[in-house]
Amino acid sequence: MARQKVALVGIGKIALDQHVPALAASPDWELAATVSRHGRVDSVPAYETLGAMLAAHPEIGMVSLCLPPVPRFDYAAEALRAGRHVMLEKPPGATLAEVHHLQSLAAGQGLTLFATWHSRMAHAVAPAKAWLADKTITRATITWREDVRKWHPGQDWVFEPGGMGVFDPGINALSILTEILPAPVHLLGAELEFPANRQTPIAARLRFTDNVAADFDWRQEGPQTWDIVVETPSGTLALRMGGNVLEIDGNVAGGEHTIMGEYPALYAHMATLVRQRISDVDLAPMIHVADALTLGRRIPAAPFEF
Amino acid sequence: MARQKVALVGIGKIALDQHVPALAASPDWELAATVSRHGRVDSVPAYETLGAMLAAHPEIGMVSLCLPPVPRFDYAAEALRAGRHVMLEKPPGATLAEVHHLQSLAAGQGLTLFATWHSRMAHAVAPAKAWLADKTITRATITWREDVRKWHPGQDWVFEPGGMGVFDPGINALSILTEILPAPVHLLGAELEFPANRQTPIAARLRFTDNVAADFDWRQEGPQTWDIVVETPSGTLALRMGGNVLEIDGNVAGGEHTIMGEYPALYAHMATLVRQRISDVDLAPMIHVADALTLGRRIPAAPFEF
Repeated sequence: MARQKVALVGIGKIALDQHVPALAASPDWELAATVSRHGRVDSVPAYETLGAMLAAHPEIGMVSLCLPPVPRFDYAAEALRAGRHVMLEKPPGATLAEVHHLQSLAAGQGLTLFATWHSRMAHAVAPAKAWLADKTITRATITWREDVRKWHPGQDWVFEPGGMGVFDPGINALSILTEILPAPVHLLGAELEFPANRQTPIAARLRFTDNVAADFDWRQEGPQTWDIVVETPSGTLALRMGGNVLEIDGNVAGGEHTIMGEYPALYAHMATLVRQRISDVDLAPMIHVADALTLGRRIPAAPFEF
Repeated sequence: MARQKVALVGIGKIALDQHVPALAASPDWELAATVSRHGRVDSVPAYETLGAMLAAHPEIGMVSLCLPPVPRFDYAAEALRAGRHVMLEKPPGATLAEVHHLQSLAAGQGLTLFATWHSRMAHAVAPAKAWLADKTITRATITWREDVRKWHPGQDWVFEPGGMGVFDPGINALSILTEILPAPVHLLGAELEFPANRQTPIAARLRFTDNVAADFDWRQEGPQTWDIVVETPSGTLALRMGGNVLEIDGNVAGGEHTIMGEYPALYAHMATLVRQRISDVDLAPMIHVADALTLGRRIPAAPFEF
């Protein structure tokens, strides 16, 4: 079957590191155009505005958006109104209401909208979900500690309103949690550490129902930690390395892992969604973040400078 | 038709001021029990725990919850699991995730869940919605300014996490806005004023799409303001007094207003929902508040003491 054409919007680090290689190797998709003010991809037609690309390429049926969440709605709405399927980087928007709006637009046009959560495609997530499916959860603990200076050097926008602060990586953990738990949880309370000179939290500790807790911290130097440990009466499951390593009772369980990378898996899923003409928009991770910012107790922290 | 039995949980100010009189005059409902640690209603069987009431009264098919949002989930879940329909005061919970959880519980049991927004039942809201239905909105402005010392004297909990601050009255305005606008809007930005010694905002200014804006302030002494003004090419609509007075181009429009009070109208609607075995859970007002707390810029304000 011929590959379908896709346009990539927002040619920055995540596009070049992940989306372009995933599309280059995709059996389903062909990168047919880019839209970006500065970035471009060799030998691919480049446009500075989405409108110009849409007008020039009626044959491009899908638009994949890699730009930051705050400007993303206008691009997604424009693409949907022009009759194109849309794929959204995580988080799917700056607000919940705007994503609901996109859902309505897509449904009204019979188009596919896919709100991606790349961490759900990490190698060990599907086997972890399968192992937990028939278990009772007695406790679960997320520890997600990384060094913001290493991953977002000098990027002040992560501490501006809408930048999400430590929830930018934390929402990846929540996207895995909400995928693997056999029953939903909801937030009971949270502590949020706001640097005195910043608008978003640099650390957060969340308490959910069913003894589920999360510890997010952006101040960890040295080794980085992306672990989820789930205790059950039948044993303890640990997902380490951001969902890429599965341990049961301390032993690495390797055999059945998927071998596809996160972004290739996202594009394969998008191809299935478009064939079936359905959408996949799960807002659960984003709702937990909004709930934490609604219900959390604010604690002052030391000023932060990159 | 015989009136159906209802139990009221949380016998505080709002229950005594609104729910008890509404039920006393209701053609659909009979107050058959109360649950409260301290409050009670003359000649109505009183229980200290929901469990005791549910066990003693299998004939009570509906439970109406008037307690504050933070403890409400556990009561609602217990009532639904015991097979009773549930009606929730506004806001329907402390978190969005917990309300989704209640929706799942209700749907799984074939029960009615009604997340009430009493301000939507104010006299002039339905005629305002009807007038706007075929109009184009060019601008809308909410001004919701009241004196927290007058309406919540000494109630420190409104400034604690989960207490919502100025969004406690503001969500009433948002419940009207989301009811009367012919198309949904979403937040573009917000400024939130946090008193230096408090956890929730005392004032908020919100900017939405379609030139919709809101100004919430809890520091207004003297005359109180609860206005929504909507400009259209066909004229300007104003809802004043919290949705109770309708003006078109400055002239009071009175004829077609409903005459039922807000809480009697809520209980009449609940009777319809139960007869039809459907739920009514519109989270749009709560989503706008969560979005404002996610995307808003925090501005320090003077410490506040009652």
